[in-house]
Amino acid sequence: MQTLIMAGGLGTRFWPKSRQKHPKQLLRMFGEESLIQSTVSRLQPLIPESKVFVVSTASQLPAIKKQLPGIPGSNFIVEPKGKNTAPCIGLSALFIEQIEPDGVMVVLPADHIIRDKNLFHQTLKAGAEIAQESENIVTIGIEPTYPATGYGYIQCNHALDDVQGVQSYKVKTFAEKPNLATAKRFLDSGDFLWNSGIFIWKTKTILRQIEEHLPHLHQGLQEIREALGAPEEADVIKRVYCQIRSISIDYGVMEEARDITVLRGMFGWDDLGSWDAVYKLHKKDSDNNVLIGSHVLTDSTGCLIDAPDRCIAVVGIDDLVVVDTGDAILVCPRDRAQDVKDVVEIAKRKKLNEYL
Amino acid sequence: MQTLIMAGGLGTRFWPKSRQKHPKQLLRMFGEESLIQSTVSRLQPLIPESKVFVVSTASQLPAIKKQLPGIPGSNFIVEPKGKNTAPCIGLSALFIEQIEPDGVMVVLPADHIIRDKNLFHQTLKAGAEIAQESENIVTIGIEPTYPATGYGYIQCNHALDDVQGVQSYKVKTFAEKPNLATAKRFLDSGDFLWNSGIFIWKTKTILRQIEEHLPHLHQGLQEIREALGAPEEADVIKRVYCQIRSISIDYGVMEEARDITVLRGMFGWDDLGSWDAVYKLHKKDSDNNVLIGSHVLTDSTGCLIDAPDRCIAVVGIDDLVVVDTGDAILVCPRDRAQDVKDVVEIAKRKKLNEYL
Repeated sequence: MQTLIMAGGLGTRFWPKSRQKHPKQLLRMFGEESLIQSTVSRLQPLIPESKVFVVSTASQLPAIKKQLPGIPGSNFIVEPKGKNTAPCIGLSALFIEQIEPDGVMVVLPADHIIRDKNLFHQTLKAGAEIAQESENIVTIGIEPTYPATGYGYIQCNHALDDVQGVQSYKVKTFAEKPNLATAKRFLDSGDFLWNSGIFIWKTKTILRQIEEHLPHLHQGLQEIREALGAPEEADVIKRVYCQIRSISIDYGVMEEARDITVLRGMFGWDDLGSWDAVYKLHKKDSDNNVLIGSHVLTDSTGCLIDAPDRCIAVVGIDDLVVVDTGDAILVCPRDRAQDVKDVVEIAKRKKLNEYL
Repeated sequence: MQTLIMAGGLGTRFWPKSRQKHPKQLLRMFGEESLIQSTVSRLQPLIPESKVFVVSTASQLPAIKKQLPGIPGSNFIVEPKGKNTAPCIGLSALFIEQIEPDGVMVVLPADHIIRDKNLFHQTLKAGAEIAQESENIVTIGIEPTYPATGYGYIQCNHALDDVQGVQSYKVKTFAEKPNLATAKRFLDSGDFLWNSGIFIWKTKTILRQIEEHLPHLHQGLQEIREALGAPEEADVIKRVYCQIRSISIDYGVMEEARDITVLRGMFGWDDLGSWDAVYKLHKKDSDNNVLIGSHVLTDSTGCLIDAPDRCIAVVGIDDLVVVDTGDAILVCPRDRAQDVKDVVEIAKRKKLNEYL
């Protein structure tokens, strides 16, 4: 099983900790490991580091390589620029195809939290078995625990046979992030799972799907394939990438493809979408606050204060997020944590480049 | 006219800028001068620095002296500890009595804002004329502009003759800080002025009033008077001060005395009681924010962000105060600015001494 870790995101919702040169996946949110380090280490021993590929943009890769010294240098794939997940997966599949043309390939986001490693491995193995024995796309859906509006959903059709003890279903549709009313309906129906962004397929299966549903991308990939290993490889990738349309794998392939199998992921998952998610995953004190550092809160509950080097005093505000990085400080209600990305947009417009 | 500036307060509502060793009156809130420097400089040329006395506690005086190099060293009066305004004024009156026993003495808080210096001088001169020619206590009342609950009030009885163009009244009563309903009633009645804490009297007048209304304090002051200039002066002051009851001049003398005249102060006054008052006195930007430093606010209006060395991002919070001093940061809604003093209390209890 070759594994591709997609590490091209910026995670601007995690400003001020996430910066252009130090994106979300490189942050230590919990414990000693960064999110991408955890993503790699939780694959062990199922998938050795020699079979782990990491794709990201040129500007991000140096910092990523530094955090993952166990991954061979040739396993890092450079995107000339971010073009969303379909081109990213297509390009990476070309590299993996060269190593193992008939093999199974797992695609993982770099920045998710997974609690039960053994159950996760079991689910990956089940997915690999299905992918190996069919031309199916396999994805993992997460049993929803609340009507989330921040996730895409997968609607299940009829149940298929369990594989290695993992429940599987034929996919009926993919649904984009819903509004709250729709999310509640999804939850009530019992048919819907959260879209984890984890895929398992044979490398040639996904390349064939791209050929069928994204002919423009396919054509670009053909050009790149011919140049692989040649001196002009990087130039060709750059040229093709500049012309390619930015499109997600969900929109470009998943919503079009037949024969998609979804496995029910029961391993405890969080995509850690915002500071609010970080608050929820931390242990709280008796006032329901999460305090990193020595702080003074009065008449304030439900707060996340992450400022190890400074005393933050909060007076009379509930459910507040304060995150300090020395040069910058975020102050935001937890229920507005999704809007932290706007700060980065405004800072960009104001040319406050040192904070990007 | 000898002038006494009372500079013993801590101003804990201005944490994190105010600290035990650097209290409110030493802060530069507006422009180049600290509040106490402005208090001294706005007296010029009416009252030269040689006639300005400053009373404070031993722990605060070194920093105060440093800010006021023009005031003679012998004009700084040391309180062994803070015992509220009546003992502070009584002790200071003994020192001023030695220099000019029949003279007029002005008492000023160290940390107020006054806009029109000329009108202020005119009012002081009017007060001095009344005090010189009578045994009256003279105070200055400020025409209220809103139903403030943070100030004491003075109720006026009948109007007296204008003095030097300043309206004057016989005082009916002093009222402590009212609740909002009472404050509204005060405002509607038209009889009430804010208590500015500024007093004008002959030195011997206030000492006689203390003798009449605070015999215990009077007795202590007698002991001190006998020791003034003697080697044991400091020891006697210390011993007497330890036994003296802590009491305000308003409660101990003003509420008891007859023959008090109040002048209508029209010179633009603010006692700068909290960060909310600081916000109100600053010029606002188009979102009604006051930003000191380079900050990113989104969907946030009516905020005061004072953090010159750091980028503060605020997402979706109106009427917020953020004040940064490098080692500590306050985050507080403007309408809770009065409660900032609680932060100092909690920090004391938690023994976070570096932040006191």
